[in-house]
Amino acid sequence: MVFMRFRPQLIFSSLPRCIPKPRTPPAATLAAAAARRRHHTTAVFTSMAAPSEDVLRRALAERQAAVDAQAEAVRALKAGGGASKAGGGASKADVDAAVEALKALKIEAGAAARRLQQAVGAGAGGAAREELRQAVVNTLERKLFYIPSFKIYRGVAGLYDYGPPGCRVKANVLSFWRQHFVLEENMLEVDCPCVTPEIVLKASGHVEKFTDLMVKDEKTGTCYRADHLLKDFCKEKLEKDLTLPQEKADEFKRVLAILDDLSAEELGAKIKEYGIVAPDTKNPLSDPYPFNLMFQTSIGPTGLSVGYMRPETAQGIFVNFKDLYYYNGQKLPFAAAQIGQAFRNEISPRQGLLRVREFTLAEIEHFVDPEDKSHPKFVDVADLEFLMFPREMQLSGESAKLMKLGEAVSKGTVNNETLGYFIGRVYLFLTCLGIDKGRLRFRQHLPNEMAHYAADCWDAEIESSYGWIECVGIADRSAYDLRAHSEKSGVPLVAHEKFSKPREVEKLVIVPSKKDLGLAFKGNQKMVLEALEAMSEKEALEMKAALETQGETIFKVCTLGKDVVITKKMVSISMEKKLEHQRVFTPSVIEPSFGIGRIIYCLFEHSFYTRPSKSEEEQLNVFRFPPLVAPIKCTVFPLVKNQEFDDAAKVIAKALTTAGISHIIDTTAISIGRRYARTDEIGVPFAVTVDSTANVTIRERDSKEQVRVDINKVASVVQQLTEGQTTWGEVCEKYPAHVGPQGDQE
Amino acid sequence: MVFMRFRPQLIFSSLPRCIPKPRTPPAATLAAAAARRRHHTTAVFTSMAAPSEDVLRRALAERQAAVDAQAEAVRALKAGGGASKAGGGASKADVDAAVEALKALKIEAGAAARRLQQAVGAGAGGAAREELRQAVVNTLERKLFYIPSFKIYRGVAGLYDYGPPGCRVKANVLSFWRQHFVLEENMLEVDCPCVTPEIVLKASGHVEKFTDLMVKDEKTGTCYRADHLLKDFCKEKLEKDLTLPQEKADEFKRVLAILDDLSAEELGAKIKEYGIVAPDTKNPLSDPYPFNLMFQTSIGPTGLSVGYMRPETAQGIFVNFKDLYYYNGQKLPFAAAQIGQAFRNEISPRQGLLRVREFTLAEIEHFVDPEDKSHPKFVDVADLEFLMFPREMQLSGESAKLMKLGEAVSKGTVNNETLGYFIGRVYLFLTCLGIDKGRLRFRQHLPNEMAHYAADCWDAEIESSYGWIECVGIADRSAYDLRAHSEKSGVPLVAHEKFSKPREVEKLVIVPSKKDLGLAFKGNQKMVLEALEAMSEKEALEMKAALETQGETIFKVCTLGKDVVITKKMVSISMEKKLEHQRVFTPSVIEPSFGIGRIIYCLFEHSFYTRPSKSEEEQLNVFRFPPLVAPIKCTVFPLVKNQEFDDAAKVIAKALTTAGISHIIDTTAISIGRRYARTDEIGVPFAVTVDSTANVTIRERDSKEQVRVDINKVASVVQQLTEGQTTWGEVCEKYPAHVGPQGDQE
Repeated sequence: MVFMRFRPQLIFSSLPRCIPKPRTPPAATLAAAAARRRHHTTAVFTSMAAPSEDVLRRALAERQAAVDAQAEAVRALKAGGGASKAGGGASKADVDAAVEALKALKIEAGAAARRLQQAVGAGAGGAAREELRQAVVNTLERKLFYIPSFKIYRGVAGLYDYGPPGCRVKANVLSFWRQHFVLEENMLEVDCPCVTPEIVLKASGHVEKFTDLMVKDEKTGTCYRADHLLKDFCKEKLEKDLTLPQEKADEFKRVLAILDDLSAEELGAKIKEYGIVAPDTKNPLSDPYPFNLMFQTSIGPTGLSVGYMRPETAQGIFVNFKDLYYYNGQKLPFAAAQIGQAFRNEISPRQGLLRVREFTLAEIEHFVDPEDKSHPKFVDVADLEFLMFPREMQLSGESAKLMKLGEAVSKGTVNNETLGYFIGRVYLFLTCLGIDKGRLRFRQHLPNEMAHYAADCWDAEIESSYGWIECVGIADRSAYDLRAHSEKSGVPLVAHEKFSKPREVEKLVIVPSKKDLGLAFKGNQKMVLEALEAMSEKEALEMKAALETQGETIFKVCTLGKDVVITKKMVSISMEKKLEHQRVFTPSVIEPSFGIGRIIYCLFEHSFYTRPSKSEEEQLNVFRFPPLVAPIKCTVFPLVKNQEFDDAAKVIAKALTTAGISHIIDTTAISIGRRYARTDEIGVPFAVTVDSTANVTIRERDSKEQVRVDINKVASVVQQLTEGQTTWGEVCEKYPAHVGPQGDQE
Repeated sequence: MVFMRFRPQLIFSSLPRCIPKPRTPPAATLAAAAARRRHHTTAVFTSMAAPSEDVLRRALAERQAAVDAQAEAVRALKAGGGASKAGGGASKADVDAAVEALKALKIEAGAAARRLQQAVGAGAGGAAREELRQAVVNTLERKLFYIPSFKIYRGVAGLYDYGPPGCRVKANVLSFWRQHFVLEENMLEVDCPCVTPEIVLKASGHVEKFTDLMVKDEKTGTCYRADHLLKDFCKEKLEKDLTLPQEKADEFKRVLAILDDLSAEELGAKIKEYGIVAPDTKNPLSDPYPFNLMFQTSIGPTGLSVGYMRPETAQGIFVNFKDLYYYNGQKLPFAAAQIGQAFRNEISPRQGLLRVREFTLAEIEHFVDPEDKSHPKFVDVADLEFLMFPREMQLSGESAKLMKLGEAVSKGTVNNETLGYFIGRVYLFLTCLGIDKGRLRFRQHLPNEMAHYAADCWDAEIESSYGWIECVGIADRSAYDLRAHSEKSGVPLVAHEKFSKPREVEKLVIVPSKKDLGLAFKGNQKMVLEALEAMSEKEALEMKAALETQGETIFKVCTLGKDVVITKKMVSISMEKKLEHQRVFTPSVIEPSFGIGRIIYCLFEHSFYTRPSKSEEEQLNVFRFPPLVAPIKCTVFPLVKNQEFDDAAKVIAKALTTAGISHIIDTTAISIGRRYARTDEIGVPFAVTVDSTANVTIRERDSKEQVRVDINKVASVVQQLTEGQTTWGEVCEKYPAHVGPQGDQE
């Protein structure tokens, strides 16, 4: 996984840059800090792109001031205290005119308030999104796509089951993922345990850094995510308080933008400053402190061996690098992949099905020579064109725009061909599943979102009722992960490039003189010695020159925090020629990481629509899943209940089974229209209705068109349709249309 | 999952029978207590069936006694102290004869010892099994079917990764499982989280009872499974100490047979009695105490909400019963299924790949009306014939024998058709995967192995180098699990049968008089009242009769531990007639539960063989996987390195991809024989060798035969072979045999 959860160091802290930032958490997939951050930064940049909010806020303030002034004037007129007319009260006509003017001003102010409300997202658009989500989620839960886990025990926040149709959709998505990535690219798939010993996650940085900041209700002990409370407070102010002065609005927006960069102290200070209290009890809150998001456990019976449920699947691949490299005949590049459960003990899960405590990840680690990130199959995706959102466009307030992938790589917008290749493959994967091209964009990480070691990162973001959701992260993580495990385990995780003939290379040789250093620096000798040995080639050559010309030089020793004087006899620096037979290097890794649950949820939203029933009294729900994804490919309906039709249905079902087409027979004694509606609601693409024993009809879900097909051919036609060998259009041309008495959508 | 881990209550303890025994653990699948128990009981019964061990032990003792006596005689002769000849020493001839006789006796005793050694399993057979296992496991690890998890950090006992070929085999097995069970029977598949709140596992009995008994090295704190130490001690004695007196041997065997029924106290007493100490340090051991085998964790940030990693997937299905029943149109029977990870924090994992701490389970819960366990598709499996091992045969010391499934059900050996149907389906599943029919048996649980609520249980056991391994459990668990969750959650998990017309039923009505009970029993009133209400119909009618004739009666109140006198006015008992419109009942559940990892490991052993290389200098390893299971279906080899052949190979590869056939191209510059051997070793069934651009050869792995096929047809021929639409025999008839210069198995 790609993202860093905590980047305070990068921005606010004074930690030296040489301390590695944590390898980061499944942000890419579920519940990510990165997603939070992005959500906000995006919100800010969006408002920059359409700066009407500021203008509207000012306009509203002006209108409101005008209303206030006019109201004051009306009051003065009515009180007769107007100074304009000598001695007498204002005329009724004057008062009436003033009141009319006030009314007009109030209408204007009202309109301005509505415009502002819409602009800040609390208006009709937000409500429509909320309504769509409710309709989708209701259908999903009613049809058991999802079930809140352990429901009879009142459930556990952030845990959901996939019920029967959901489970099939998930299996279809994973099976297509395997086909599209693992088989197509001959990746080495592995399957590692979820239970992971502490040392692995220490090396990856998760034990130290995989945390969220938490506050507690000081009286009840209830826990909250500190950034959530601050975010809610600021959003509430911005959306509901339309009279907010512009400076205050700007401040809250700034806080939202930097929310994820705030340190514990800074978050605590803001919470105090704004007087934020526990939402449920209004009790005071503790100071924020880090809470590690891994589920901890103990391996074996002694209680001494700490383990965690893995927060991502990637580490299982990295620790196997050496074996996999040998398995691949010691050749680069190659990719390894893993599908599996990952875990994340969220403090207080929100966003329903998107932010959960256990989820399925599918991750690829593509290992390449850092000196050659070209990809032989890049040409296959170079002509793809889709919405891209490079960092420059985000920073300049533009929106994502259609770009050709080939150009994005050749212009250097995307760092290298391999990264570009995976971006293209991810685009194909998502759109084949049924994700709407218009609501899919590839967003590049901003400089402050990326780990310092990362070469480039792009997220596939899908627009849903929750906004733009990060569903796949595609990152060039350089050699960071392999290096971290090499260091911790002492096992070199490296690749070799054998030279066809040995090469002469110049190598820097630094030989400190322990004796002279000891005499000069006593107890500090070791630190000076290490600092000398750690010099870069450039530093060493500068020192060599200085020592040769001046005999001594000033040298800064970080670990001592001071400068020391180095003389000529303390160190010998030279460039020596050597013959090398091979190059040994740590491969770079390019990591596409898929949050399967998030992709599926967005797919549900993108596939959902409603249409009126025939009687137009109710809306019917439909999921327009492509056959690839549909939980069931075909239903078989005997039109009326009789033995002949039932037998014919069984013959068709048997043929479908042989053809490997999942299907159900629905013999319930309700109208055919009702039965169509019922399977439309779980997204079954084709229905076979048995109204004769010689030939039957096939109905397509979205067009509701029907054709007549011989009973012995029906299974093979459905097979061709579901496997993409023919289209519905072609079938309609080939077979006679059915326009019979069978009702549809009663 | 089926088994109870702990049954001390059943046999030794005096706990009342009304305390439910725990629903039991993944014994069926991995590391099961049940498996241990079975292993021993089986060993005992086997020795009964072939009682030669006792005979041999006696024979050896007699021979040894004869040797000792003769040796004594020789010594006496040599010392000249023989009383037989007056005055003089024995003649040299006498001594020589006696020595010869001693030698002959020693040879006889040696032979007897060898026979005994073989009979107790420590002889050549055991060594051969050990050798086979080593060869299989070496190949599996070298070819990355498995990798010890986190190997670069020295691994964690009981955790293994599936490497690339293993991962594909697993995916193939799971995909076939879905096809064979879920799709074929239209089961409702669900996918629930691994993280499970405590209340669910309290209801199932795991929190209280899912334990193993553990002892600690009193000085170092190292933990051991108490039963393992006792078992090792007894086995060692039986196998290595050939001079063991018969009574002692019988005692050790008896201990092995009842090992899993021993209470903590009894185990501790045996450990003390035999003077068993810590194996590594020889330090004394603590008393045994229960260790819960679930990985514990904490859900959410407060630390107050205990959770566990699920020890089985079944509970996720039971808690969803109500929703699934409605989803299925409130009709019985129906089955739900789940594939997923399960966890088990073994005290000290042994048996390599068979006993692990995290594993994949595939479980089915088939819900039926307890009054009708017939199955409409039972006829489809009734004619299957395979090795069955009913409990009577185990108890009478016979071996498993071939039985027709239909007869086993009609004779009542198998309790009901539905259970029988699943036994048949499991048989087909395992043999389709490539499990050897001769090393697969269905063993019925002995009465003391079954939970009291279970109607019948059968295990599919597969013979491996570790002995007979329980790989699938198939149990009729009656209504136990649904009742347990109904009770704990308060949500009725029941089914309804609507009557076509209301039925008149007689119902028992017991109405205790609180006032009179209170007067008579004061503080004990509540317990008497509850005992009255809990009477069975029979008990109540007896009491009614007694009260009517005698006016009072003696009544035993268990919870008070004494008898009380009940008088006529304390309780009114009557039978009342009521009209019922429906029957409400808790369904029974029939549970086939598959330990996927165990099945795969046994499959590896059954598929493995070696054959000499052409030079006969080394043995070549082969896995004879059927195409269904094979990690890769086809390899493509350009015979020699040139552009034309490489291009032809790519054309074939593209056609294979289109046909959905997994394959690899191997262009390494080693001989074709070596390359064949390399793919035989990972069980690739077909190899295409490109030695021309017009037509190429297809080689079958096990026969090593080759045919010539047109380059444009090769992908479709391989597809038909791997999908079972044609056989190798048919292909050989249709296409010309290749008998060219291509070497095989160098």
